[in-house]
Formats: sequence, C-alpha cells, structure tokens
Amino acid sequence: MPELRKDPIIGRWVIIATERAKRPSDFISQPQERMKGFCPFCVGNEDKTPPEVLAYRQSGTRPNTPGWSVRVVPNKFPALKIEGELDKRAVGLYDQMNGVGAHEVIIETPDHDLSLANLPLENFAQVIQAYQDRVIDLKRDPRFQYVLIFKNHGHAAGASLDHSHSQLIALPVIPKRVVEEIRGTNTYYLYRDRCIICDIIHQELEMEVRLIDQNQHFIALAPFASRFPFETWVIPKGHAVYFEAISQDQLWALAQILKCVLQRITTALNDPPYNFLIHSAPFYEKEIGFYHWHMEIIPKLTAVAGFEWGTGFYINPTPPEEACRFLREVKI
Amino acid sequence: MPELRKDPIIGRWVIIATERAKRPSDFISQPQERMKGFCPFCVGNEDKTPPEVLAYRQSGTRPNTPGWSVRVVPNKFPALKIEGELDKRAVGLYDQMNGVGAHEVIIETPDHDLSLANLPLENFAQVIQAYQDRVIDLKRDPRFQYVLIFKNHGHAAGASLDHSHSQLIALPVIPKRVVEEIRGTNTYYLYRDRCIICDIIHQELEMEVRLIDQNQHFIALAPFASRFPFETWVIPKGHAVYFEAISQDQLWALAQILKCVLQRITTALNDPPYNFLIHSAPFYEKEIGFYHWHMEIIPKLTAVAGFEWGTGFYINPTPPEEACRFLREVKI
Repeated sequence: MPELRKDPIIGRWVIIATERAKRPSDFISQPQERMKGFCPFCVGNEDKTPPEVLAYRQSGTRPNTPGWSVRVVPNKFPALKIEGELDKRAVGLYDQMNGVGAHEVIIETPDHDLSLANLPLENFAQVIQAYQDRVIDLKRDPRFQYVLIFKNHGHAAGASLDHSHSQLIALPVIPKRVVEEIRGTNTYYLYRDRCIICDIIHQELEMEVRLIDQNQHFIALAPFASRFPFETWVIPKGHAVYFEAISQDQLWALAQILKCVLQRITTALNDPPYNFLIHSAPFYEKEIGFYHWHMEIIPKLTAVAGFEWGTGFYINPTPPEEACRFLREVKI
Repeated sequence: MPELRKDPIIGRWVIIATERAKRPSDFISQPQERMKGFCPFCVGNEDKTPPEVLAYRQSGTRPNTPGWSVRVVPNKFPALKIEGELDKRAVGLYDQMNGVGAHEVIIETPDHDLSLANLPLENFAQVIQAYQDRVIDLKRDPRFQYVLIFKNHGHAAGASLDHSHSQLIALPVIPKRVVEEIRGTNTYYLYRDRCIICDIIHQELEMEVRLIDQNQHFIALAPFASRFPFETWVIPKGHAVYFEAISQDQLWALAQILKCVLQRITTALNDPPYNFLIHSAPFYEKEIGFYHWHMEIIPKLTAVAGFEWGTGFYINPTPPEEACRFLREVKI
C-alpha cells in the first residue's frame, strides 16, 4: 500500500509510492558529461571573473592572482544587482520592486577536477568558513533580509560550469519556503513550548531507521516525508537559530558530516547531480528563537512534473528508510 | 535592472532576470526523441491496460476493444490505490495515512502520432469532456477532497509514454498549492469584496501586454509574475468556482483556446516538453465562492535548482511581456 506522509514542519504531504517502487540501485546515474572549453574559475584566470570579494590565500599573494584555496566573486551574470534602491511600486494591482541583491559564487577549490565531496577536510572547512564570512558581511546591508547559500552540482541540477562551486543570493525579501518553516515551527512551539526540529532529532536518534550519520554536533537523516529519493537533511543537534553563529568546533563538525554525506551519495549513486541549500533564520525578524537552522541535500533523480506543480506535493518512489539503509551501508 | 515581481494570489516573488535575459528564440527546443517499442495506449492493445472506466466510442463497440476516440483507464502503476480506508495514524510526532486515491490515464486519441495540440477541435473537446465526466464521477466518493487533472508532455516534463495522454489523481487531502490560492483569494476578497482573478482579468484586458489570446468565455495570458519562460494561464472570463461546472458552450470555448495556446507554444518553440494542470476548488469546502478556477501551462525550458528549492521563488530569464509578444505573433 502506498503511504501518504505529512511533513511535520510545513504540512506538505508526500506520496511514498510503493506500487511504483524503485530500488536504490535503480537510481545509479550515468556518468555525467564534462563540459569542454575555457574555465573562468581555474587558477590563472582570476581576471576573467569580477574582482574577488573574499579569498583565503597564501600570505604574500595579491588579490585576483593565484595562491588562493577558496575564492568568492560576484556572479558575472547576476540574477540580482548589488547597486540601487528597492523602489517598491504598484503596477495596477500588482507589486514590483527593483531586483536589488547580491549574487556571488564561492569557488571551492583551485583544482578544476576535484569535486566538493572529494576535497580534503581542511579545504572543505574553508568552504563552510567562506559561507559564514560572507553571510556575516552581507547581514550588515540593511536592504537584505536573507542570504540563501546553495549548490548546484551537475548540469541536470542547474550547474552551468563544472568547476566545483556554490552560490549565494542575498534577498530583500524572506523566501516563501522559509516563511512556511517559520510559520510551522512557531505553531508547534506555541502548542508544545518546544522546538519541532529538536523533537524530530530526539525521535530519529531513538528510532534509528532514518539516521544516516551523526557526530558530536550534527545529525544527518532521511526526512520522514522525503520529497525525493535520497533526500538528506543535516541538522545541528543543539538548538540553533542562525547558521552564521556556528563556532569553529561546530564548523569542523559540519564539514566532516557534510563531506561524509556527499561521499555516501556520490559513491552509492555514481556521482549524481544534486542541489543543497542552507535554511537559516532571516536577519531582522524578532522573537524567532523557535527556528532551527539546517541543510537540505537533494539528489536530482526524478522529474518534477504536472502533479508536483499542481499540488505542491511530491511522489517519492523510494521510502526514506530504504534510502537511509543504502546510504549507511555504502563503503566510503 | 532585474525586477522582483510578486504573484498577487499567493505572494510568491519571482526574479525577472534581465541581466541573464534570454530571447524567446534561445528556447527553441531540440527535436524530442520518440520512444520505441510496444505502446499499451494504441488501438488493438486495449487489453494491455486495466479495464476502462470511461470511453467515448462508436455505437455498437464493446468496452476494451477498438472503436473509441477517448479512453480513460486506471494507471497500471498508480501512485495511490483506489481500495481501502485512510487509516490515519501517528508515527511518533509524524502523521501518516494510507495512500488511498485514484490515479487514471486519459488516452486522448487512438492515433499514436497525433499530439494534443494537433487534435481536431471536436476530439480536443472530447478530452475536456472526459476530464469533466471523471471529476463529476470521482466527486461522489466521500474519501476524496480533490481531483487534480494534469498533463506531462515529453520525456523531460515527466511523460513516460509518447502516446498523447493526460492524467488525474484524486486525493484525500487538499493540495498545498490550492490551499495557498484559497488563502490568497480569500484575503483579497475580505479586503476588497471582489475576486482577485476577476480583477486580474480586468487589468490584463485593459493593458493588453500580457494578453496572449481570448474568446467569448476564456482569456489566455502570460502571468505578471511568471515563474517560467512562456508560462501561460487560461482563465474563464466569468467568475466560476468549479471547473467541472462548465457548460457545453464553455467546454468548446475552452477546447478552442487551449488548442490555440498549445499550437502557439508548439510552433514557436518547436514542440517543447510542457506540463499543464487545472486548479479548481476542493469538493467539500464551504463558502468558497471567492475562488476562481483556471489552467496553468508550463513549458519545461529552464532547470529548477538550488535557489528555487531553497526559496520557493523562481528566476525567470524571459519577461512575460516578451514571451506574450512572441506567442501572439506566431503563425498557426
């Protein structure tokens, strides 16, 4: 019998479609084609990107020259532009404002052929450090209410360049998905005086069937109402509202567990395309102490089609318990 | 300057990314590969599907034999199952129920090589008639709260068979997207004592820049906050809550405008993959007179990636006014 499972945070139903069940091994990807041609993210091509806004570099090297390990630059084709005022206005009954925001690229490694999952742990930690540094910096701009950090890996997941990179977009509005999470976590908090994500962690540590990995500070789990096969969430075990407030200890623990999860997904499914993103609390909301930041990792293995567009629900052919077992058993 | 535009119904922001603008002609699709092999939807293979629940057939022909023009059958690999009770239950703090529902396939034509856009108008009207008949029938089952009618055209839009077909899924819960539309239209109604979609129609008929087509009963427009290039909505001009309540006149007018819109999209973009869906009011909600049913047509031309998953917002590289002009000028 198929199951309808409800996401406990935002109330979205997901169909776990056992009748069209796919074994985890049905999802093993074909090798992805590498793009050919010039790469603006490679060492030596620093002048082919806009000037860097942050780089971790060997002492003595100048900005926008070789010698960096992680480099952050504005996106050359930004979805939003950093200059200007919002100029909110009406168009008849519609609402519109200028597309003011930041759109930056975090180049994760100088090595064109290294993927994020395969970065040495200390380089991986530098990538997380760059996320943190950039969010803290952009938070000072009063025009922005939110910074979304995300990664598109592989052409089918939206990456337009092979060289391993993540992105951030600073927004003058709060994302709809985050508003839904705030509403959901707040409702639960008002009802029970507890954080729903803390309760989820407690239950998942006890049940173990969806527990992919854990370390001192983080848990990696297959969500009960996973939208997609092998969807994985990484969540701080202790209640924490803002990603950018992580300590150095926590930052290393996050790098460690995220690297392990990506290695498991990469090894189990033959380097599939994937997206990940960080959901943290918006900047200027008051009394948002009930929110609990987390990461969502979404392998791109199924098509989003008419049913998903029409309902906002998802049909997932792989029960998360089965995906979890498969990821847990993989040798990395 | 890029623009941030707000969907007036559900409040979703969309980035119209002029800096990464694409001309409509950049989206012209490569020819889609046709699948090879046996087709269970073809005439003569009626016994290869589950028995039909509805067919319009030449008089004197028996069910599940040739002689039909439109045929509706249960999906052989259903996402939900028609038998059984919901059996709602808790799993710790999670909510779950049995995946009870209907999942049917509307085979739109006996001709394997004819696409919906190219069906003669009277056959097209029969397809809409089948939608209406099935919704009215499924509405009698008290376990269901909603029937979503949708179509996936082309492999990239989720179709697993080439033979032209649409689908319906009857659900024991109301889709999240419909709940959002109900909330949005209700808020506007309480504020202004008017239907927001009627107001949109009024404004679009006046402004004309997003008006793709119209006839006596329907309007086709490029929504102000289009998520995707060439997104098109078809809306009844007169206020109407339920799709399934359309008259015969309206049904023919819907067939006429939808066929024209699909022909325009197909001709302009070289038969791109697309999804469409019908949003109508749920079955048992009371006092839902403020809702206004409509169709959404979504060509599949851009990737949904980390930004979209993380925010619930969309980056659209083609202003709807430009998409509208391109679709309007196409010769069909």
